[in-house]
Amino acid sequence: MEVPIRIGLAGLGTVGTGLVKILTGSPGRLAGRCGRPVCLVAVSARSRLKDRGIDVGGFAWEDDPVALARRDDIDIFVELIGGEDGPARASIHAALAAGHHVVTANKALLARHGQSLAELAESRGVSLCFEAAVAGGIPIIKVLKESLAGNRITRIAGVMNGTCNYILTRMESAGLSYDDVFREAAALGYLEADPTLDVGGIDAAQKLSLLSSIAFGTRVSLDSVTLDGIERVSIADIEHATELGYRIKLLGVAAPSVNGLQQSMRPCLVPKDSPLGQLEGATNMVVVTGDPVGQIVLRGAGAGEGPTASAVVGDILDIARGVTGPVFGKPADQLTEPRTSAESGAAPFYLRLTLVDQPGVLARVASALADVGVSIDRMRQKSHHDDAAPVLIVTHPATQAAIDSAVSSIAETGVCTDPPVALRIETA
Amino acid sequence: MEVPIRIGLAGLGTVGTGLVKILTGSPGRLAGRCGRPVCLVAVSARSRLKDRGIDVGGFAWEDDPVALARRDDIDIFVELIGGEDGPARASIHAALAAGHHVVTANKALLARHGQSLAELAESRGVSLCFEAAVAGGIPIIKVLKESLAGNRITRIAGVMNGTCNYILTRMESAGLSYDDVFREAAALGYLEADPTLDVGGIDAAQKLSLLSSIAFGTRVSLDSVTLDGIERVSIADIEHATELGYRIKLLGVAAPSVNGLQQSMRPCLVPKDSPLGQLEGATNMVVVTGDPVGQIVLRGAGAGEGPTASAVVGDILDIARGVTGPVFGKPADQLTEPRTSAESGAAPFYLRLTLVDQPGVLARVASALADVGVSIDRMRQKSHHDDAAPVLIVTHPATQAAIDSAVSSIAETGVCTDPPVALRIETA
Repeated sequence: MEVPIRIGLAGLGTVGTGLVKILTGSPGRLAGRCGRPVCLVAVSARSRLKDRGIDVGGFAWEDDPVALARRDDIDIFVELIGGEDGPARASIHAALAAGHHVVTANKALLARHGQSLAELAESRGVSLCFEAAVAGGIPIIKVLKESLAGNRITRIAGVMNGTCNYILTRMESAGLSYDDVFREAAALGYLEADPTLDVGGIDAAQKLSLLSSIAFGTRVSLDSVTLDGIERVSIADIEHATELGYRIKLLGVAAPSVNGLQQSMRPCLVPKDSPLGQLEGATNMVVVTGDPVGQIVLRGAGAGEGPTASAVVGDILDIARGVTGPVFGKPADQLTEPRTSAESGAAPFYLRLTLVDQPGVLARVASALADVGVSIDRMRQKSHHDDAAPVLIVTHPATQAAIDSAVSSIAETGVCTDPPVALRIETA
Repeated sequence: MEVPIRIGLAGLGTVGTGLVKILTGSPGRLAGRCGRPVCLVAVSARSRLKDRGIDVGGFAWEDDPVALARRDDIDIFVELIGGEDGPARASIHAALAAGHHVVTANKALLARHGQSLAELAESRGVSLCFEAAVAGGIPIIKVLKESLAGNRITRIAGVMNGTCNYILTRMESAGLSYDDVFREAAALGYLEADPTLDVGGIDAAQKLSLLSSIAFGTRVSLDSVTLDGIERVSIADIEHATELGYRIKLLGVAAPSVNGLQQSMRPCLVPKDSPLGQLEGATNMVVVTGDPVGQIVLRGAGAGEGPTASAVVGDILDIARGVTGPVFGKPADQLTEPRTSAESGAAPFYLRLTLVDQPGVLARVASALADVGVSIDRMRQKSHHDDAAPVLIVTHPATQAAIDSAVSSIAETGVCTDPPVALRIETA
């Protein structure tokens, strides 16, 4: 048996507590998997005395995570504090500078500072691992960095925020509005302190930007993610999408195109019988398309104590086995600044128009679409009991620009009683 | 840039040819992913002159794969010959003995000789990698060995033979008999030279036994897999299962129980709306349940040039990066001989009985089930136009032994015009 690998853990929230349970609960099993004892030696959190259901009395205590990160009796610094700056960033920086490996679940921090931290880690010859930062227990980081490293990745698509998927599937199953389900989720404690991170798509966009970097060999580019949250998804659109054979998901898509790397996180329609369309509740899914592997789908719990702690332990065991390598799969100084594009290429679109009930109105809609070269695949006019007629249109593949142009010219003709809705349909 | 990693490749069939294309087609991308050039230096196959659509003139040629395996100008020996003994086994043995790493897609060989080869590899400090041997492009080996290494795995379930899943889904969609679809698949060239390996479940059982070893830290135990193929699955059962909300899959299940490690590969019913139930065509799926990760589902192409070559390249790049470790996740000399059990624990069962149309017959069936403590969840008698009435029963969870006993006592009473059918229902 080799020398133990020694862990310093900063942050004793849900995931940190779960990690302590695994590290102390099955030491023999973990040692068997990496060939050496895995020892938690020191911890740091805001309050030493808080009852977390675990005994931390056997570990050295540091009030200051930076002091923990610099201790010379640890090999790996595990950061589970959270936040894109502040103590999380300071302590990771201190740990890497001290030549310690780092394991973190902090997507916000890596999406902002991943490049400089990766350069620091690689210059010191240590690992900076973040399997737990994206899609919880789904091992998408290692799959992209290692298992699929022989592939040219052509597209990543994923549902990577469990809260949003819970809200959307709950709206559908209960027939409730977004506001009602949001209040329900808040009452159940499912929301972050700042719920905009979830429902605004920011958390999911951070995850997508990390996957993009690994998949395409480019620097993390969070600001170029086209972003739209789920706040304006209506129960009417969820129901109409279902009728048409689709479901609405907060879907991240990243793909290189002739115009550059395109990344988006926004509500999209996906076919009901596709893997993404079948995803219920807080579960996450990532769909990777590559040459020559084809399509690989990974599905699992995207958050929570157990799945996230599982990912952290996986990273710890890799480091314990001596596995190290570039943070984003290629050396950080070889990652290129991506040429990015906000244009996602052509796709079918779902349009919902609420039109005044007058002769000639549909003709005006049809010609507004024809004027920008958008052709109609399917159209349904719903029965109605007032003066406004809901009309659903599924277009043939069209560009976002063409759809935007058609929708604003339709709105300008004054035939809509409500603002038109246009959502992309992602078929694969 | 470090020194090149040098590959010797034995076997230039579909996968071997695909591998040559990747290794020669994107050398810069591969080097970027592992930090050193990846060079194919020597190849071996049965015929040097066969037209494979690739140029092998630039590589050293060996007629004998064992000679290739022993060359001192290679670092990794890639075995894509196939077969559980013969030249595949001899050349892998020779390569390991010469201190070369080995990458193989050979599930049959590893299921038989994995233990001794793993001991040899570990004694020489070299890798024996086999990602391509199980579920094609799905990176289930690395996910189990590394990403989920912190988990206590409680169950593995999977559809791991694309040919069988193609046959079963084609039977369902076209309403054709097994024999008709089998003939169709043979005409299309989808079947192995010995189709029993596929349709008899042997190929899939080999894969399951390899996953079991990694997941449960036990020696590969192929002979303890309870095995039944798809040859006797009837279109009637496929149709009745669909009506009841299920689909029939050739499903592998491995799980430890109080009686020991249980492994089975056999036709089972799974809920139509579960991930396994939604699997179409030749696609593979593996569902891993672990503590604390919960349920992880992986899906992708299970065979073919591209997916399999992708897995081989992933292994090559790991070795090129210097990653090595025990073949089955734990050192081979620490793998325990599993206490195995043929008893799979209780599950609901689907029964199809074709009964003579006489008063009292159903009562006799019901009491035969009650006599062994099996209770009925649902029962349907189908309308019929002759003297025999098909009756479908879904039981509450029962043991295989109880079901076998009930079925044989029902058959003995002479009320069945056809042999009864009993299939397990796997709900997760």
